[in-house]
Amino acid sequence: MTKKVLSYAVRTAKSPLGPLEITRRDPRPDDVVLEILYCGVCHSDLHQARNDWGFSHYPLVPGHEIIGRVRAVGSEVSKFKVGEYAAIGCMVDACRDCDPCKKGLEQYCVKGCTQTYNGYDRHDHQPTYGGYSQCIVASEAFVLKIPPGMNLKSAAPLLCAGITTWSPLRHWNVGEGSKVAVIGLGGLGHMAIKLARALGAEVTLFTRSPGKADDARRLGAHNVVLSTDPGQMESVWGAFELIIDTVPYEHDINPYIMTLQVDGTLVFVGQLGNINPTANTVAMIMGRRALAGSAIGGIAETQELLDFCGEHGITAEVEMIRIQDINEAWVRLENSDVKYRFVIDMDTLKIP
Amino acid sequence: MTKKVLSYAVRTAKSPLGPLEITRRDPRPDDVVLEILYCGVCHSDLHQARNDWGFSHYPLVPGHEIIGRVRAVGSEVSKFKVGEYAAIGCMVDACRDCDPCKKGLEQYCVKGCTQTYNGYDRHDHQPTYGGYSQCIVASEAFVLKIPPGMNLKSAAPLLCAGITTWSPLRHWNVGEGSKVAVIGLGGLGHMAIKLARALGAEVTLFTRSPGKADDARRLGAHNVVLSTDPGQMESVWGAFELIIDTVPYEHDINPYIMTLQVDGTLVFVGQLGNINPTANTVAMIMGRRALAGSAIGGIAETQELLDFCGEHGITAEVEMIRIQDINEAWVRLENSDVKYRFVIDMDTLKIP
Ligand SMILES: [Zn+2]
Ligand SMILES: [Zn+2]
Ligand SMILES: [Zn+2]
Ligand SMILES: [Zn+2]
Repeated sequence: MTKKVLSYAVRTAKSPLGPLEITRRDPRPDDVVLEILYCGVCHSDLHQARNDWGFSHYPLVPGHEIIGRVRAVGSEVSKFKVGEYAAIGCMVDACRDCDPCKKGLEQYCVKGCTQTYNGYDRHDHQPTYGGYSQCIVASEAFVLKIPPGMNLKSAAPLLCAGITTWSPLRHWNVGEGSKVAVIGLGGLGHMAIKLARALGAEVTLFTRSPGKADDARRLGAHNVVLSTDPGQMESVWGAFELIIDTVPYEHDINPYIMTLQVDGTLVFVGQLGNINPTANTVAMIMGRRALAGSAIGGIAETQELLDFCGEHGITAEVEMIRIQDINEAWVRLENSDVKYRFVIDMDTLKIP
Repeated sequence: MTKKVLSYAVRTAKSPLGPLEITRRDPRPDDVVLEILYCGVCHSDLHQARNDWGFSHYPLVPGHEIIGRVRAVGSEVSKFKVGEYAAIGCMVDACRDCDPCKKGLEQYCVKGCTQTYNGYDRHDHQPTYGGYSQCIVASEAFVLKIPPGMNLKSAAPLLCAGITTWSPLRHWNVGEGSKVAVIGLGGLGHMAIKLARALGAEVTLFTRSPGKADDARRLGAHNVVLSTDPGQMESVWGAFELIIDTVPYEHDINPYIMTLQVDGTLVFVGQLGNINPTANTVAMIMGRRALAGSAIGGIAETQELLDFCGEHGITAEVEMIRIQDINEAWVRLENSDVKYRFVIDMDTLKIP
């Protein structure tokens, strides 16, 4: 007994996105069924559609920044009622039993968390399909509550871009007066600026584009440093406790390491791959500086983010699109031509 | 009014070590004058003698693992009395006023600490000369107390090899039951094993040499993993909270990153230079793993180490040499032909 729902999918690594009917399971006792209202468009959607990371399976329905309304609940669901708004991010399950899972770090589950799309359900072993779809079914343990009054359209990107920057800000204890820098002003970078600012940090944006300075300040940055200007870079040597590096392609991090304080950390959240050019250990050893990585965030931490954003009136800057325009949107995303996140109005999927 | 003392020095980057008379200042009010009894031989001594790091000045008297006896004290010295044993490590001063200095992290002084040799005194701007010498003069704030009963000869390497591994063990909170690995069994590596073991950690040595396994176990390692054996490496994936990487030359760290737990850190203490081959961010991002550097340790931390070693009966494994044999010892050091640290009996310097 499953339900057929309309989605947008790629059928091979080289196909464009197009309509596809998929099946969603009937709710298990702990499941929540969401009618999807809005879905953010993440860079990972492109990478996975094109099998850039080598583990894609097809058809593939992308989308892991999902805002929806509860349509049905399983018999044991206690957190959600039919008619409520709810959200799903990058994960729909994990082993729930390993050390990281027990610590609320389901994204680092040692058995691998179940990705919202391009994964396999842990029970029926069926492929998971993402948010470019009319509906999704997931265990309530991985469904988030949306604080009252939040703008639903612009909340969608909190589920990936938001939590991916929130988690390192929290893990590295950013708070009142912290000196934080963000490299790159895109989907992740603009959220990092807003969140760090709301946490009370003094926020600097590193960018190669002088044209982004005004926008960065409007979003909350106190300072903007042109990374192409050695003089500006030298003026911030030793300045930052934490640098959130959102750049999604290879780039030289050595000039940024110099801008870390003693015991500072540069954390990669955008680029999966080699550090190229390579890093030099001298500035690391001579200031106990660190390079680290961070992936999305745990479920409890994602709820914490949503609640924080509810309190502080924070959502993403978005450009709404129709699902029929998704292929063009992906091209624009590749050209960094979006301020700062596309969100699909899933209502448009009903239109034939 | 200064004092002439016999030392061993290099006069150019290409010279062998040979006798040289240098001058030591008369003690200032806060100074301690040490007659040097023993001096450990550190890899940095070679690097600096040969100007490998590009900032050497000559003549250069190496040596920063110094054990001595107090011969005189300045009028304001309160910590030391004439006749007591005392020690000096890699630093003899720092600005004492910056954030790191105030936190006891003088090694990361933002104005640069004063190195025991190949530095310049902050007051008279005279070059500093190290422990390959009959005598040394330094502010009591940078002179360490030696716990009663400690073996003086084998204590010398605690001042650099010891503190360089102690500081990261303490900073990353190694204690009872911690899972710690050490890469490389040399001067630093053998101290890392002894200290981590004494702190209560479960200790693993990574080595390329099967022949080192017995020695590693004798020194305190619970496990030995052959890093050249992919099967053995895979058996420890996700195992360690902290890896202390003591290897002094370029090497591939990616296989080691895989052996870190979620939130684990690999800390470089041996290799100043490029990470080559470069590191890949995937395992860092997918487990919030970090690469960091660490340099020696602060003065209070060095005293803590000496006190800890006094309590636990820990010193280095040393091979005693005459100062006249130092050039041969340096050749052997370059070939890793020492178990595990040369210490010069400075009494031999008196012999013409
Ligand atoms: Zn994403
Ligand atoms: Zn798990
Ligand atoms: Zn040394
Ligand atoms: Zn200082």
